[in-house]
Amino acid sequence: MKDKIALEEHVSTPLNNSLWDSAGEASRNGKAYMDDVEKRLLDVDLLLETMDRNGIDVAVMSLTSPGTQALLDPAKACDFAVRSNDWMAEKVVSRAPKRLRAFATVALQSPRHAADELERAVKTLGAKGAMINGYTNVGSADGAQYLDEKPVWEFWDRVAALDVPVYLHPREPMPDQCRMYDGYPSLVGSAMGFGVDTAVHAVRLILSGLFDRYPNLIVILGHLGEGLPFLLPRIEHRLIKQSEGIGAGSLKLRPCEYLSRNFYLTTSGQFNTRPLHATISEVGVEHVLFSVDYPYESMEEGGQWFDNTVMNENDRRMIGRTNAQRLLRL
Amino acid sequence: MKDKIALEEHVSTPLNNSLWDSAGEASRNGKAYMDDVEKRLLDVDLLLETMDRNGIDVAVMSLTSPGTQALLDPAKACDFAVRSNDWMAEKVVSRAPKRLRAFATVALQSPRHAADELERAVKTLGAKGAMINGYTNVGSADGAQYLDEKPVWEFWDRVAALDVPVYLHPREPMPDQCRMYDGYPSLVGSAMGFGVDTAVHAVRLILSGLFDRYPNLIVILGHLGEGLPFLLPRIEHRLIKQSEGIGAGSLKLRPCEYLSRNFYLTTSGQFNTRPLHATISEVGVEHVLFSVDYPYESMEEGGQWFDNTVMNENDRRMIGRTNAQRLLRL
Amino acid sequence: MKDKIALEEHVSTPLNNSLWDSAGEASRNGKAYMDDVEKRLLDVDLLLETMDRNGIDVAVMSLTSPGTQALLDPAKACDFAVRSNDWMAEKVVSRAPKRLRAFATVALQSPRHAADELERAVKTLGAKGAMINGYTNVGSADGAQYLDEKPVWEFWDRVAALDVPVYLHPREPMPDQCRMYDGYPSLVGSAMGFGVDTAVHAVRLILSGLFDRYPNLIVILGHLGEGLPFLLPRIEHRLIKQSEGIGAGSLKLRPCEYLSRNFYLTTSGQFNTRPLHATISEVGVEHVLFSVDYPYESMEEGGQWFDNTVMNENDRRMIGRTNAQRLLRL
Amino acid sequence: MKDKIALEEHVSTPLNNSLWDSAGEASRNGKAYMDDVEKRLLDVDLLLETMDRNGIDVAVMSLTSPGTQALLDPAKACDFAVRSNDWMAEKVVSRAPKRLRAFATVALQSPRHAADELERAVKTLGAKGAMINGYTNVGSADGAQYLDEKPVWEFWDRVAALDVPVYLHPREPMPDQCRMYDGYPSLVGSAMGFGVDTAVHAVRLILSGLFDRYPNLIVILGHLGEGLPFLLPRIEHRLIKQSEGIGAGSLKLRPCEYLSRNFYLTTSGQFNTRPLHATISEVGVEHVLFSVDYPYESMEEGGQWFDNTVMNENDRRMIGRTNAQRLLRL
Repeated sequence: MKDKIALEEHVSTPLNNSLWDSAGEASRNGKAYMDDVEKRLLDVDLLLETMDRNGIDVAVMSLTSPGTQALLDPAKACDFAVRSNDWMAEKVVSRAPKRLRAFATVALQSPRHAADELERAVKTLGAKGAMINGYTNVGSADGAQYLDEKPVWEFWDRVAALDVPVYLHPREPMPDQCRMYDGYPSLVGSAMGFGVDTAVHAVRLILSGLFDRYPNLIVILGHLGEGLPFLLPRIEHRLIKQSEGIGAGSLKLRPCEYLSRNFYLTTSGQFNTRPLHATISEVGVEHVLFSVDYPYESMEEGGQWFDNTVMNENDRRMIGRTNAQRLLRL
Repeated sequence: MKDKIALEEHVSTPLNNSLWDSAGEASRNGKAYMDDVEKRLLDVDLLLETMDRNGIDVAVMSLTSPGTQALLDPAKACDFAVRSNDWMAEKVVSRAPKRLRAFATVALQSPRHAADELERAVKTLGAKGAMINGYTNVGSADGAQYLDEKPVWEFWDRVAALDVPVYLHPREPMPDQCRMYDGYPSLVGSAMGFGVDTAVHAVRLILSGLFDRYPNLIVILGHLGEGLPFLLPRIEHRLIKQSEGIGAGSLKLRPCEYLSRNFYLTTSGQFNTRPLHATISEVGVEHVLFSVDYPYESMEEGGQWFDNTVMNENDRRMIGRTNAQRLLRL
Repeated sequence: MKDKIALEEHVSTPLNNSLWDSAGEASRNGKAYMDDVEKRLLDVDLLLETMDRNGIDVAVMSLTSPGTQALLDPAKACDFAVRSNDWMAEKVVSRAPKRLRAFATVALQSPRHAADELERAVKTLGAKGAMINGYTNVGSADGAQYLDEKPVWEFWDRVAALDVPVYLHPREPMPDQCRMYDGYPSLVGSAMGFGVDTAVHAVRLILSGLFDRYPNLIVILGHLGEGLPFLLPRIEHRLIKQSEGIGAGSLKLRPCEYLSRNFYLTTSGQFNTRPLHATISEVGVEHVLFSVDYPYESMEEGGQWFDNTVMNENDRRMIGRTNAQRLLRL
Repeated sequence: MKDKIALEEHVSTPLNNSLWDSAGEASRNGKAYMDDVEKRLLDVDLLLETMDRNGIDVAVMSLTSPGTQALLDPAKACDFAVRSNDWMAEKVVSRAPKRLRAFATVALQSPRHAADELERAVKTLGAKGAMINGYTNVGSADGAQYLDEKPVWEFWDRVAALDVPVYLHPREPMPDQCRMYDGYPSLVGSAMGFGVDTAVHAVRLILSGLFDRYPNLIVILGHLGEGLPFLLPRIEHRLIKQSEGIGAGSLKLRPCEYLSRNFYLTTSGQFNTRPLHATISEVGVEHVLFSVDYPYESMEEGGQWFDNTVMNENDRRMIGRTNAQRLLRL
């Protein structure tokens, strides 16, 4: 397939690099791997060349994790968001405006500023929505604000008005969530820990009633929905059963109905056919999107898998391109 | 289907009840629900009648969670295990020896005692394996020992020699793992928190090399494998990619290969057809087993779903009965 | 689901009834069954009431088989088509113009007349395409013209220009095709014989090159594609292998690619979940449509199956309504 | 996978070659293709070498179609069967008794002789069952006897007593069944015509009541069951609906229940993943077997597809080996 669209693709900036714990990343993820990742995060030529070689027509770029989410000083976070979005527009998107688009960076330490900055990014810079890397540190390194919390609804109000999607990207779990991984640090840093935090984050959004207030709101999840196509039916079953606790009682729909109505799930970093089939089966092919998670994942590996795996050509076209065109109005 | 076999079915005992936090359970799970659960945990007649009405021929019973796992005094835990197994044999299994079987309770605070007690339960009392409720508190309420940890291998050595399976049952996550659920206590207590801890527990077993040492060892997981049929392909992908971290390098097989070789996955509490199909697709129908999780789940609901959901009759027979017969030598 | 659209729904007319072999139908299909069918074929009130009770908002009606296809006199066949379309507009569609639509009857004994009459029906009467009941007798009861034959391309030329779909409905196989069913007349008259003839008919269309000449042409098949989602991959494999015979060599695409590009498949008379899943998997949910085949099949049975079978809500909506809206511009 | 078992693999003999219409085959199927096929049908060394290269441990060999089925003189047919089985034992199986097994040739022109010869082949020559190439000409080239016809039940009686399976292999349809393929001879000779005749043949067996009389009888079908996993649910639905015709009324089970109980379906010539998945879903993985249809199909193509296609390793092992071991007592 020659004209795929990918939505979880990353760059960095000099400003973002100043926050980057290069040694820590290398120790967690391997030095050779991280050297390649760090080079690619700053090289737009190499990005375009890699897209060309792998049949990716359009990539929606975003600032690599953790971005603003980890900045403790709200004013600095807001400034960081503005400067990151400007950089993205000037140094990345402008290089190939038909090929590269952007998800905005926002500083949820101030939901109002995040809303204003999203509006600026969308209306002035052409951003297609926002990318948010998990919970946001508020007040201290220990303070975590999830997107369902009431102060953030001011931000969602603007998201709904702008009618753009928010990509909810994983972030490393809070340090005290990690005791169960003792002895297996790779489980935290890469796959399982990140995924659990994001899956819980998405379930919080569902249970908060956010999608009853904004029925058209769209949240995008990577990694085929962080396991939710498989896990949410059970969670829903228990919540309904235990009706005296918090549950589905106050919601208009069942949790799984929000998943298939208000979420789009991408293939980023989940180049596995059976989970893809399970995802299509649970939420419908209309709500599945191709993505890679470049440069942490390989466009070559993801693209070859996607182009060749067991899938009918109508589904491949929807997942690979037309769903994203419709969602992002490309 | 008239002759199903179920494997995650629970009783309690007066001794176990003395540890039971009835008020806490009711507040977490709802009083009406827990009243019914608690009555059923002690009523073998009602159990047999419920089995009859729902086409369940044989139930493999086990002591309800948390059992020994939460006892801080090792000597008390060992004593508790012995007395629980005796009770199970005398007061439960003996009531209908062709209909009721047992998984033994063991006290992993002392892996050697656990091994000896498992051997006694299997050889003397006819137990079909062991039921273990997640991590074990060792030393303090704060100390958690997972089953992959080296001292526990003495226990696994005996399990392998006895050639019986171990059912790894969920337990509530350690308290400090729960901050991400703040505001959503039901997510901890019932579905998501329990499942994540168990899934991590199973992945630890896989990565520890245990199944290279004991290639025939069988671990049973409930809830269709706690999401692993969906999640493990991604985790495996990342572990292989980041080869400098802990990973698949030192293992003989890929993580997913252990899942389909060394694990059996039951339907307990996951009466959802699409996740069932995804599970069958990932590990093969031979490694899927019917179960309910009585009395926390309803034999009527689970049985009717299983008897009628979209499944060919050969698969229904394997999952409902013959896989369990083969695994447990019934 | 309250607003389904169904596309293979039938009426008869007094004129059509004059051709009807009531005794033969009763002997083949059962008298009680055919009595009910014949009553319903003429009762628009009962049709609308049945639609109401089963959540069917719109039904695209067509003249019941065999229609013009069995008329030996071309002039009579052409006249029959005109009068049938007028009847359909005046006596059926006008009764509830928002609820009832029509597929036109055409007389392929004269492809030019069929083209003209289709154009009249579409432009003047509002028909949404044509319904064709299998091969057409030409010259004699023994002469069979399939839709891929060159004289018919004049008709297809107009179909392509009008940009409307053709529903290819089964017809009983030619009498000499039926020896293999000796002793099992039900296999001919209802399910297998009809389906084989229609499947062969569709494969002929694919191999004829018709869809290379008209890449946007859409043919609708009932009964989940008459088995082609399962059979065509094997047929394609053999045709490619035996390259010296007629084969894929002269076509721009592989046969299966035409199936997923140029065909829509309906659920008429195939209220079976596994074949539905296989069909969705082979051609993609975008190309699957809900239909019943009323009154030969029951709207209650088909509707209840469709509303409740294992399917995510996004797929249910596409198959049940939005695919048909898009295809028929409703 | 290194130790696959294949069950629809063919040889010829000089005697069989004397019946062979080499020119006709070449004109239907292509000369280069048939030259290779004919060479391979007589070369056991090449067979074994091809098995080695493609991870096939055991092949159950049978005489290539049409074998006895087309012989008009019953005495000659019986003699042909005996001599073919002797040849198979002496010239083929004896070459590598652990690698090559045989399905017996039988002459159903005389069901009693067929029964006796099957018994001799099984008990004396070690045959694992019988291979039957579709309907048998009786009396004249125009006379077709299907396996459900009452005189053949004498043969089935012995099959049941011997407890061996019968592989029902396709044969070209009777000439008068082919008018619907006019203009498309490849459809008859290779894929569609053969498949339809075999599917009808199998449905006749089901509807005849044979499997009520012999509940343990096993029939093997190639090509993933000739479409029946997809088609039979619809056929069953119609037969039940039209209860006044011949139907399910006189049978103990529904037609689909016989398919999953009394049939095993092989992958011969259907190296397509989606139909394989649909087949597994309909009849269960326990009743699916790997096969190639050598030398008409390529062991390399079939083997590579099977070894690498999307399938869990437990299923691959069952389909590739252990199901056949159990069925054939290997």
